[in-house]
Parts: sequence; structure tokens; C-alpha cells
Amino acid sequence: MKYRLGIDLGGTSAKLAIVNQKRKIIREASFSTAGRPRPGNVIAAVGNRFRRMTSDLSVERVGVGVAGDIDFEHGVIRFSPNLGWKNVPFRKLLSKKIKKKVVVDNDANVAALGLYRTQAPRTVRHMIAVTLGTGVGGGVVLNGEVYRGATGSAGEIGHMVVERGGRRCNCGNRGCLETYAGGYYLARFARLRLKKGKDITPLTLDQAARKGDRFARSLWETAGRMLGQALGDLIYLLNPQMIYLTGGVAKANDLLLRPLRKELSMRTLTVPLRAVDIRIARESAHIGVLGASFL
Amino acid sequence: MKYRLGIDLGGTSAKLAIVNQKRKIIREASFSTAGRPRPGNVIAAVGNRFRRMTSDLSVERVGVGVAGDIDFEHGVIRFSPNLGWKNVPFRKLLSKKIKKKVVVDNDANVAALGLYRTQAPRTVRHMIAVTLGTGVGGGVVLNGEVYRGATGSAGEIGHMVVERGGRRCNCGNRGCLETYAGGYYLARFARLRLKKGKDITPLTLDQAARKGDRFARSLWETAGRMLGQALGDLIYLLNPQMIYLTGGVAKANDLLLRPLRKELSMRTLTVPLRAVDIRIARESAHIGVLGASFL
Repeated sequence: MKYRLGIDLGGTSAKLAIVNQKRKIIREASFSTAGRPRPGNVIAAVGNRFRRMTSDLSVERVGVGVAGDIDFEHGVIRFSPNLGWKNVPFRKLLSKKIKKKVVVDNDANVAALGLYRTQAPRTVRHMIAVTLGTGVGGGVVLNGEVYRGATGSAGEIGHMVVERGGRRCNCGNRGCLETYAGGYYLARFARLRLKKGKDITPLTLDQAARKGDRFARSLWETAGRMLGQALGDLIYLLNPQMIYLTGGVAKANDLLLRPLRKELSMRTLTVPLRAVDIRIARESAHIGVLGASFL
Repeated sequence: MKYRLGIDLGGTSAKLAIVNQKRKIIREASFSTAGRPRPGNVIAAVGNRFRRMTSDLSVERVGVGVAGDIDFEHGVIRFSPNLGWKNVPFRKLLSKKIKKKVVVDNDANVAALGLYRTQAPRTVRHMIAVTLGTGVGGGVVLNGEVYRGATGSAGEIGHMVVERGGRRCNCGNRGCLETYAGGYYLARFARLRLKKGKDITPLTLDQAARKGDRFARSLWETAGRMLGQALGDLIYLLNPQMIYLTGGVAKANDLLLRPLRKELSMRTLTVPLRAVDIRIARESAHIGVLGASFL
């Protein structure tokens, strides 16, 4: 039996999983990465878990998914705001430590690959995953493979401009999709408007909307419509068969999907619109480690 | 020596060219397609030229580029407004006539392929061609190959929405890029505003702007900025190495490029922005037939 190790490296925790050829997780581990740990400490902790997890089996290769700007080709973490890292040659460090081939990619690509291999029907060759978390990201699978572009930057859906001169984004521009559909901005916008309630989150906004709160409903309406506009452009450009929405904000489900579909109904090129199936991905805590193991 | 035949089938004329292995045109022909000819007549005319052009040499395969909605997989012209054709099985008809393997694709894909093979540096693997003609189209080359998507509809750049609720487009939606940067709309918008001058074309608008005409300048400014916005989204999504602007409207050159770059300077993800080279394609009357011959 051949095994792979998938690592999902986030700003809160690192998850590790040994995956077999049938794409099943047979062993798991994790450790905290809170408080912006030094790369050396994370490498040591991974090495530690790796030794214990593979004492009685042999792992072929190791895939790592990291939130941030990743140089896939060289396995360098160019910038990870959550970890507070800049230009960390993670592949080199880790492969030296564990003597295995290591591949490093960003979390959206890894999520796309995970969804592609575990949820998408077999006939799908072109698929996009939109990760609606604190921020908005995207992973693009074309011809059955993750498409990364010239510098591994492809799929930056969150900073597509959906409203010229619109809401100010932390990236420095205005009107980015993320400022309408990202969890951070949804909650922040609600807090500013309501001038109270530190405990506003996408989840409480979801609950408020379902109880009939008008303001909360309008926030979801806007989020869904803006997401629909970005997806419309994406569908025209890439003519995919599937688009998965995933991440915490995607749990709003119909609150997001209804305005999204209303927005898409304004588009008129029927061939690509009919070809695509847009849905909320099935929830799974393991998409990150599974996707990483498929790298 | 192996030869290929490229056919550029437009609403005004059909151009044919025999291309050798060195990508040089060694023989040309053409005939009129004005007045919405019947498919059978066009097939007969192509067969005619084909016999004469290949009397002393053997052609391996034939590629056809057609403006319109093309089903690449089945070689069917789903809809070509210029020719007035709907659901014409062009590949089947032509291959029956000339007993050769025939491939049919849309003109933007063909232009992209032509530019990719004749103008792009060899190191380029990911390239986008934006055709700025009467309308706005796009061809996408990823990993060195034309990317067509699930139904051959990929690259519909002209109907990306660059301004929510903006100018009304013939497609039925509002704010499509084409309504700001397409030759038809540029001229129409100028005519409406000036309430005179049937002879307004992108060319006369170019000349007026260069003479300092404020209104003409503002039209190009808007066209360039809207194009810049669409390209910004495209760069974030696909992280290409090159973007070529081609077609009649692209001749405005700096009138378009200056506001385009100004718009792009508002984007902040420097890695993909630095990776891309945006330029006007070198003019060539042969990109269509060459691109078709490479299909």
C-alpha cells in the first residue's frame, strides 16, 4: 500500500493526515500554530509528528496547504499573514527534515483539489472552488488539474472588482468581491452600521436574517449578488462545469444562493450558463488535509 | 514537406491559405461571403479553391476560424450572426467535400493561437488575446494550448460586467465590457451624443482624439479604463504572462493603453501584475488564416 501525508497549515493549527490510495484518512495528528510560531519550530513539530505517524508505514510524498501567497514552483511561502511569515522556503526546510519529496501550495488550490477528487462527479474536468472564509479565495481546476498560472497566483477571485469605486478593501483597492462576501467584511460592515455588538459574526448574521432581520437580509442579498456577478464573469471566461462554494460564509446556503442566482439570471449567454452547476460543497473538516495529500 | 490549410471565414470574405511546416504562407485565395450565402454555396466555393490550391501538393488537415458561437467538439457553427447561420455542421459538410480532417473553432480562439505561435516569446505558456473589433472577444491559451472550457464558450471577455447597471448591451444585460470598448458601441455612443455624423467610426474617433477633441478623448479614456478593469480581473484569475490586444479598435494604441495602465495601477497584488506583459499585437492580415492552420 502506498501512502501520502497531507498537511493543512493554518494560523490556528496544523493538521496532518496519512491518506491511503483509496483516498481515506487512516491516521491523524495536529498541533497549535497560534501566536505566530517561528518556521523552525513548526518544521520541528511536523518532523516529530511525521516520525510517530510513519513508524510502521512508508509515505511516498508530502503535500502542504498554506493560507497565503505561495510560490508553488519553488515551495516558498512568499507571505502568510496568518502565520506572520515572509519568504520561508518551507519545501526545502521540510524535505531536509523528513527526507521526502514535499509540495507546497496555497489553501484555496488545495481545497479545490480536495473537492475535485472527493466531491465532483467523474465527468467534471473544469471546476472552480470559491473559498468564502474570513477572506475570499479561489482554486481553479482546468482539464482535471489545478491551474496556477505564471507565478502561482491564479484564482484570486476575492480581489476581482465587482463595484467600481465600491467598498474600500484592505488590499488598497475599492469594490473587491471580498469586501461584500468575505466574513471579515460582512461582520465589520454590520458592526459599523449597528454601532454595537462585538459578537457579530457571519453566523449571527445568518441567524438574524433567518429571524427576519431586514438589515441582516440586505447584507446577504448584497453578498449573494456581488458573488453572482463575479461568478458570471468567471463562467464567461472559463466555462466551467462546476463551481463549489466552501468555507464558513458558504454555510449561509440559500441566503447566498438565492440572490446569486437572481444576479446570474441577468446574464444571457445561455450555453456556458447552462453548462455549469453551482453548489455549496458538502462540509468536511478534512478537505484541507485530503487536498494537500493529493498535491 | 507537410502542409496545412487555414480558412478564415467571415461575414465579408473567406480567406484561404496553405501554410508550410515553417509557418509560412505559400499560397492564398479568397472569395466573397457577403449577403449571407447558403452553407452549401460556401462549401462548394471552398472545395473549388481547395482543388486548385492543392493540385500539386498534399494537405494534411484543414482548420477553419469562424466568428460566432462554435461547438468546437462537434465542428458545428451554433450561431454566426455575420453569416446568418444557425446550427451548421460545417466540419461534417466540409470534410465530406474535400476528404480531409477538418477542425472548426471561433475566430477569437484562432486569433489567440495565431498570435501565440507567431508573436509570443517562446517562454510564454499562458496568454490571452483580446479581440477589439466591432465586438469584444477573447481567446485563452493556457499551458501552451487553447483553453475552450466545457462547451467551447470560454474567453467571452466582451460580456464581463465592468459596471453594474451600466450601458445597455445588445446581449440583454447592462455594463458589459463590449459596450465601452467595442467598435460598434464606441461609434454608436458618439453618434447619439453628437446627434450627427453617420461617418463616425473608431478610426475617426482616434483622429479626433489626437486633434485634441475632448469628447473623443473621454470616450477612449472610458474604453481604456473599462478594459483595464476587465484585464485586472483576468490577471487575478488567470495569472497570464502575456495579454495581446488586437483588432481594429486596438489601433488606438496609447489612447487605450494609457487609461488601461492607469486603471491597472489601482490593483495591488503585485506578483501577478508584474508577471504580465500587455501589448498591442503586431498588425497582420494573416493572423486568422495562420491561426486556423495551426488548429
